[in-house]
Amino acid sequence: MRTVDIIQKKRDGGVLTPDEIQFFVTGVTDFSLPDYQAAALLMAIVLQGMTAEETSVLTGAMVRSGVSLDLSDIPGIKVDKHSTGGVGDKTSIVIAPLVAACGGVVPMMSGRGLGHTGGTLDKLESIPGFRTSLSISEMRASLTAIGCALIGQTAEIAPADKRLYSLRDVTGTIESVPLISASIMSKKIAEGIGALVLDVKSGKGAFMKTPADARTLAESLVTIGKAAGVRTQAVITAMNWPIGFAVGNANEIVECIELLKGKGRPDLVENSLELSQRMLVVAGVANDRTEAAALCRRALDSGQALERLRLIIERQGGDPRVIDDYSLMPQAPSEHVVRADSSGFVTELDAGLIGRAAVVLGGGRDKVDDEIDPGVGIMIPATVGDAVSAGDAVLRVRYRSDTRLEGALPLLTKAIRIGESPRPHAPLIIDEVI
Amino acid sequence: MRTVDIIQKKRDGGVLTPDEIQFFVTGVTDFSLPDYQAAALLMAIVLQGMTAEETSVLTGAMVRSGVSLDLSDIPGIKVDKHSTGGVGDKTSIVIAPLVAACGGVVPMMSGRGLGHTGGTLDKLESIPGFRTSLSISEMRASLTAIGCALIGQTAEIAPADKRLYSLRDVTGTIESVPLISASIMSKKIAEGIGALVLDVKSGKGAFMKTPADARTLAESLVTIGKAAGVRTQAVITAMNWPIGFAVGNANEIVECIELLKGKGRPDLVENSLELSQRMLVVAGVANDRTEAAALCRRALDSGQALERLRLIIERQGGDPRVIDDYSLMPQAPSEHVVRADSSGFVTELDAGLIGRAAVVLGGGRDKVDDEIDPGVGIMIPATVGDAVSAGDAVLRVRYRSDTRLEGALPLLTKAIRIGESPRPHAPLIIDEVI
Repeated sequence: MRTVDIIQKKRDGGVLTPDEIQFFVTGVTDFSLPDYQAAALLMAIVLQGMTAEETSVLTGAMVRSGVSLDLSDIPGIKVDKHSTGGVGDKTSIVIAPLVAACGGVVPMMSGRGLGHTGGTLDKLESIPGFRTSLSISEMRASLTAIGCALIGQTAEIAPADKRLYSLRDVTGTIESVPLISASIMSKKIAEGIGALVLDVKSGKGAFMKTPADARTLAESLVTIGKAAGVRTQAVITAMNWPIGFAVGNANEIVECIELLKGKGRPDLVENSLELSQRMLVVAGVANDRTEAAALCRRALDSGQALERLRLIIERQGGDPRVIDDYSLMPQAPSEHVVRADSSGFVTELDAGLIGRAAVVLGGGRDKVDDEIDPGVGIMIPATVGDAVSAGDAVLRVRYRSDTRLEGALPLLTKAIRIGESPRPHAPLIIDEVI
Repeated sequence: MRTVDIIQKKRDGGVLTPDEIQFFVTGVTDFSLPDYQAAALLMAIVLQGMTAEETSVLTGAMVRSGVSLDLSDIPGIKVDKHSTGGVGDKTSIVIAPLVAACGGVVPMMSGRGLGHTGGTLDKLESIPGFRTSLSISEMRASLTAIGCALIGQTAEIAPADKRLYSLRDVTGTIESVPLISASIMSKKIAEGIGALVLDVKSGKGAFMKTPADARTLAESLVTIGKAAGVRTQAVITAMNWPIGFAVGNANEIVECIELLKGKGRPDLVENSLELSQRMLVVAGVANDRTEAAALCRRALDSGQALERLRLIIERQGGDPRVIDDYSLMPQAPSEHVVRADSSGFVTELDAGLIGRAAVVLGGGRDKVDDEIDPGVGIMIPATVGDAVSAGDAVLRVRYRSDTRLEGALPLLTKAIRIGESPRPHAPLIIDEVI
């Protein structure tokens, strides 16, 4: 088998055989395939696409490029969630303790932030002492003891994805439903889960700009999951403005704690409950959504979900006192308030621009090895739909460097729009793929 | 300017600006652009195409990646020809001395064989002592003294093309009209010529399989040439079976000498005269085709063209006695005859298969650093249209290694078809682009 023949076949719109796809992934994994041939094939895939069957085979080969966890000795259907990435999207940190408190088993492997979207691991690590790099045996112990673990992907999971992702990043080959699908699903399938709920974001702050594109991706992801024997479903949710009232790292953790204390902003509550309830049903913990909703309500009202977060923080080396004392969380020293320049209603808070501003402030990354400042961020006292008077605070910016603030402010000013009448209500949950 | 933005623009079907194209070619030339980014952009170009304007700009940037010869101190319009490659296509070796003998000035830079098509340099180097790597000053001296030089491309000419071509070869990105056009034309424009005649081959033994595809390429080449101020025209010629009676290296040189002695096979004579006459007209040596035809006829009948070849061989270090004594040319020791298995007419001699067989015998290259055996080859005593009786020789194979012969024979057997009635005459000259 010659790589150039495989490249030419895909270039000409052909369907690659399982052997050809395996040959490619093996070459990626053992580095026998040079970068330039991988890049040419990736571009051919971006432009010619892959069938659902090819995408499943690619995913399987990427799973087998590394180790797959076997969690079968831990009782129950292990369930995870994955979001395609949004701004202010901190649902994982709510969902893991909530679903675990309801009796689910959640081996949650998350990623770091890149570009304008944040990453769960970065947020968690803003808790003093919190370790996300648990060993597999530590993870097993946590799952057995408290029903969940919030960790990073280990190097042994889908190494082919790691090399391909780096290459896609610099060759303009990120934007491809089959490649995105295989990247996401290979890591999830290798986790040893039996069920998965996907939150596919759609809108200005998301990778997929339209619900139709989001649905295409959601269908691809669900098809792959089911083909691999994982009970998979997806919801498509709006990501035009940030979710909740915090964008950053430490401030998002505080928002999650507040939610678990019963003081969550409705959009974040809705998004978290939608996913949690689906996870409980798909994992067989609840028989239906009504039962799942009741379980969630009880876990929240009783404080069990909050307590579960405390246990997670303790087990993973963090300081659990942050739950009661937010001053233990890092916070940048200075605040700048962006105010409404007229009276009316907030009709726009562009999530893409606010996400970019958070990166400029130091709260996110442009390159994978950029350092993050956990204490900077943006609070959103007035969100889309709220009435404001001229001079009211719309955004509160926590910052450390004047230069970075200066870089962020034009983006934030541009992100805000105040109109004379409120924007018609736009639902958060747009669609589902089950 | 970021390479990844340029890649994404082309990936999404955009038109690159001259600055973006220059940025790419500069990065290719100074190696600041990594192979994987170049490969991704090349694949995007293959699949999304380039406008005529982009292709001209790309060609210009590739010309400027190296030196351009200035031959303006040598009187007359310098004229070259280029063929897109065929099997048994040895017209360059006829044309250079013929056009020079008619008063043209021909600075001919040729290439080596790769794949099933042969290369002029390899054929010339089968002449004992013949040097194709003349310095620029030696080339100038030859042009002044005898009106032509048959040399290889120097490293200073279009170095960007050299790197891109190597990369295209291993990334499945050869098949692209804009990339092929820029590669061919950048080298020709850098030669310092004022006129160019292109022979775009079409058929089973050619890169372009149909006359329509060949016309597309021809139009692209002519457009680029004219945009660069070179008087350019193209003929589209049939390449379904080999031209002439020899496929190989030394045997093709002998065939050229025979033609210059007045003993050429009609198809090779027609192809050579078509191109030579056009060259004489486009370079302004002759006023029209009739005058050009008379000049050619005189140069051939008088032996002037043959004498010019003798001068070329002498000046370039070769042994000119080969013209009178073919035994001085290398010849493989063994011969195998492929015979007609029935009586009738030869209706097919598949040029692609015969070209492949020549490579298998050792007369061509699969990789650029393969060595060539100049003495092996295939002679074609009975060509398409000829009547044969069962048992008549159709092909005579000169070979050195039994193993290689065994590899070549199935291809040769498959290449031949004998029918009951002659094939209708198919013209050699199919079309022109002027």
